[in-house]
Amino acid sequence: MKERFILTLSCEDRIGIVAKVSTFLADYSAFILESAQFSDLETGRFFLRCVFHYEKKGLDKKAFSKLFTPLSQELSCQWQLHAASEKTRVLLLVSNQSHCLNDLLYRMQNNLLSIEIAAIVSNHQNLKEMASWYKIPFHYLPVTPQTKVEQEEKILQLVHSLSIDLVVLARYMQILSPRMTKQIFGRAINIHHSFLPSFKGAKPYHQAFERGVKLIGATAHYVNDELDEGPIIEQEVLRVDHTLTADQFVQVGKDVEAQVLARAIKAHTEHRVFLNGLRTVIFK
Amino acid sequence: MKERFILTLSCEDRIGIVAKVSTFLADYSAFILESAQFSDLETGRFFLRCVFHYEKKGLDKKAFSKLFTPLSQELSCQWQLHAASEKTRVLLLVSNQSHCLNDLLYRMQNNLLSIEIAAIVSNHQNLKEMASWYKIPFHYLPVTPQTKVEQEEKILQLVHSLSIDLVVLARYMQILSPRMTKQIFGRAINIHHSFLPSFKGAKPYHQAFERGVKLIGATAHYVNDELDEGPIIEQEVLRVDHTLTADQFVQVGKDVEAQVLARAIKAHTEHRVFLNGLRTVIFK
Amino acid sequence: MKERFILTLSCEDRIGIVAKVSTFLADYSAFILESAQFSDLETGRFFLRCVFHYEKKGLDKKAFSKLFTPLSQELSCQWQLHAASEKTRVLLLVSNQSHCLNDLLYRMQNNLLSIEIAAIVSNHQNLKEMASWYKIPFHYLPVTPQTKVEQEEKILQLVHSLSIDLVVLARYMQILSPRMTKQIFGRAINIHHSFLPSFKGAKPYHQAFERGVKLIGATAHYVNDELDEGPIIEQEVLRVDHTLTADQFVQVGKDVEAQVLARAIKAHTEHRVFLNGLRTVIFK
Amino acid sequence: MKERFILTLSCEDRIGIVAKVSTFLADYSAFILESAQFSDLETGRFFLRCVFHYEKKGLDKKAFSKLFTPLSQELSCQWQLHAASEKTRVLLLVSNQSHCLNDLLYRMQNNLLSIEIAAIVSNHQNLKEMASWYKIPFHYLPVTPQTKVEQEEKILQLVHSLSIDLVVLARYMQILSPRMTKQIFGRAINIHHSFLPSFKGAKPYHQAFERGVKLIGATAHYVNDELDEGPIIEQEVLRVDHTLTADQFVQVGKDVEAQVLARAIKAHTEHRVFLNGLRTVIFK
Repeated sequence: MKERFILTLSCEDRIGIVAKVSTFLADYSAFILESAQFSDLETGRFFLRCVFHYEKKGLDKKAFSKLFTPLSQELSCQWQLHAASEKTRVLLLVSNQSHCLNDLLYRMQNNLLSIEIAAIVSNHQNLKEMASWYKIPFHYLPVTPQTKVEQEEKILQLVHSLSIDLVVLARYMQILSPRMTKQIFGRAINIHHSFLPSFKGAKPYHQAFERGVKLIGATAHYVNDELDEGPIIEQEVLRVDHTLTADQFVQVGKDVEAQVLARAIKAHTEHRVFLNGLRTVIFK
Repeated sequence: MKERFILTLSCEDRIGIVAKVSTFLADYSAFILESAQFSDLETGRFFLRCVFHYEKKGLDKKAFSKLFTPLSQELSCQWQLHAASEKTRVLLLVSNQSHCLNDLLYRMQNNLLSIEIAAIVSNHQNLKEMASWYKIPFHYLPVTPQTKVEQEEKILQLVHSLSIDLVVLARYMQILSPRMTKQIFGRAINIHHSFLPSFKGAKPYHQAFERGVKLIGATAHYVNDELDEGPIIEQEVLRVDHTLTADQFVQVGKDVEAQVLARAIKAHTEHRVFLNGLRTVIFK
Repeated sequence: MKERFILTLSCEDRIGIVAKVSTFLADYSAFILESAQFSDLETGRFFLRCVFHYEKKGLDKKAFSKLFTPLSQELSCQWQLHAASEKTRVLLLVSNQSHCLNDLLYRMQNNLLSIEIAAIVSNHQNLKEMASWYKIPFHYLPVTPQTKVEQEEKILQLVHSLSIDLVVLARYMQILSPRMTKQIFGRAINIHHSFLPSFKGAKPYHQAFERGVKLIGATAHYVNDELDEGPIIEQEVLRVDHTLTADQFVQVGKDVEAQVLARAIKAHTEHRVFLNGLRTVIFK
Repeated sequence: MKERFILTLSCEDRIGIVAKVSTFLADYSAFILESAQFSDLETGRFFLRCVFHYEKKGLDKKAFSKLFTPLSQELSCQWQLHAASEKTRVLLLVSNQSHCLNDLLYRMQNNLLSIEIAAIVSNHQNLKEMASWYKIPFHYLPVTPQTKVEQEEKILQLVHSLSIDLVVLARYMQILSPRMTKQIFGRAINIHHSFLPSFKGAKPYHQAFERGVKLIGATAHYVNDELDEGPIIEQEVLRVDHTLTADQFVQVGKDVEAQVLARAIKAHTEHRVFLNGLRTVIFK
């Protein structure tokens, strides 16, 4: 199969963007496999995702970049080109719960997600063995009020030294400082165990139980500097009833959390997600 | 088919309740068709719903009541007996939106809900024609800050004079006073157009749009004296994406609202719903 | 708001189609609001749906057609241009069940579907009153083995004389002859009350009950000359359990049928559906 | 917490069963926590599941059995008593796909399922390492037309020697002989990768792709002597669209398969599932 490329682009909207970009692609024999675009009439932003391969020997990323730069400047657009085969390098942050971790490791190993988990960081030691079975380096970074700043610094160093594309908080029960979230905004996904904006903060399943809701949920979102307020990528819910206790909400919710996080990571790594202020544009 | 009866009962939990109640039923040749019970270990409450018919000529409601009273006193229980064929008499409150009204009128007419809509009250006139086609009396009670108390009084008079069992707020865009909600608590169901407790109050779809959620929902709940805080009966959600505007959220949400309200009314009229503090027990 | 146009197009796939079409649009100041395309690598077909308005005074449909024809010939494509405000003219076929009919009439009246129901045909008389309340002409065409050919002929005459765009079989319990289905293929949608291909033919809910399935469903599909084998547009399911009888399956299934049919009609009338052999391409 | 017991019982229906059973329980100070019953009016069968603990020191299983036997004979019922803490001993059959295996091992280890996987049997060797990490004995039993009978015999020997309660075919791609299925009927659950009865037999996702369905699914059922025709325990579906290939159906279907199988096993091991001819009664 031919190598596939994914072009993503966003800019101020106007007439002729698609014409120019698609003409550029056609000029270099790019065969478009999938293309989706969205014009946000409210904000005036344009978003494009385009998957293509070359019919004959095509441009490599460097050549593409050089040739595409003048057009991108004309459009004042932000753009990225990725080879579809490039795996996203992930740093996983976890605490002591393993359901999301196990799910992601399994999906990585079985190529259900196009990711490479470069390292796992935890403030607990209990998941070390699972990491080691999958041969992933494990960094134990216990967090106390005194060490919090220092540990975040170490995480950021890992992000740099390991060339991390995406930080995943797979039930990492620590609140990141604004200083840290600013540096990884748009590149860090958290799974919150409620259907946001309901039940922000601690013990959401217990809050849900007290309120007597009939559906519980999970939300994957980009991390920003306000707790549980980042742009939402994916949500899902699950039916519950009066026979379940709050602790059972916690148990049954694990499946939804793992699924929602995996779907969000899949969308992100396939370059389907665009930030649009506090919302997201996601091309299916 | 034999006449079916539904016995509902709740009391402080203890050993032997089921034994006593089911022995009572067996003694009068009641054949149990369905039975469900729930013990809330946290609150120590017991809930029972039992559907039966008589093998031979059985007790009518009055005779049942007389004979069951001593046992009910021994158990200190609250109980009700309904013939399954008794239709619930409903007073419908609407404003100017018709989707829930149309849905309920249709279900009533086609026996998809065991209800008899005794009258429709609205603070607008535009749905009068729909009411008249279904031959339901329509009361136009416009509400202003000055007339609010008076209009609520008229609604309560209708509840009494028409022997209403259930008040349904089918997108009635008025907040009821605590004075009124107290009198109809447990007998009034509201449909709120969000997945509560998210987006309480006004314009929930617009709130949802601003937050960028990926699922929107609706919640049917008993009305109490705190806005959008009553015990939840049913909830459902619907997937949305970036291509929809807030106004389109409003449009697509209508289906979910009508469905959730209809399901809640169905459960209530089949005597499946029990109040358990701020939560509900619902036997499927 | 400016008038919106929807261009749909399909042809053999090759490099440069998007470039040519979008350049054509840009040349006439068309501002693209939404665009989606799909390349079926297996069949080599290309599908495009593009929504646009004109920034300044644009082409009307006739002018567009004249100017676009050379390009369409170069691409050997099938294409259509619709103004988004044009309502699809619908002929509704029903038997004696009203749930889909009621739902569609309501959606039409409340602009939840962009349709104009030009007439209703039924082989029973009981839904005449509902039609008349909505002021839709009602044609009673009873069907017997002897009159079947003749009645189909009358339906086809209505299709022609009323300039019908879409025939909807809203629980029309007659099997159309191949002679008829050939003439309306791609312009006739049926709702089948099962999750196809399970339970084709008669009494699908009873078949589902006998098999003991845990989900029942409905399927909207284009009608072709093989019973319940046409290209699928939409499907949905609903959870059932052991407490429901086959007759109750029938009852609860009605909601799903009405929803699935409405969604399929919505997709069709927004020109989102393309035939792709026995499958469909549907742009969300 | 007190030890919980689960009593399940089924018999020909008549008046007074609940009265007798609940009186028996009350006589021995059993506090009923949950109870559900169902009367199948069509078949005349009665089904009861009752969860209880003892207020004071209660009967152990042996004493219960001795005391309950006379009543069970009077009712001519089939019954079982299980301590809720007893884990179901499972024999897992797999081929070379790991998604269900991984899911079940994880749930076992994290007490999300009350099972003890006594051994894993496979006709391939590739999942041996995963078994060994979880410290589960792995039996490699390759199957050829010549060895099939012999291998089934070895599996049955494992069922006996390991005191297996439940055989789980977690994507075991071999068809069991009627001779074998007869011996384990009601104690063997298979996961089929389609929404049965659609797409029985081989390559169901490819069949689904060809038919152009919009939802794909999975079905967990008891194994009987007709392929993919056993009593259904659980089903779930997942939305697909035209952008997915048949191979991608296979990929995305894995999540649904694992979930449906896990839910079916959960229901079975909590003694919620009763056979009712070719259907099942499942108490939630």
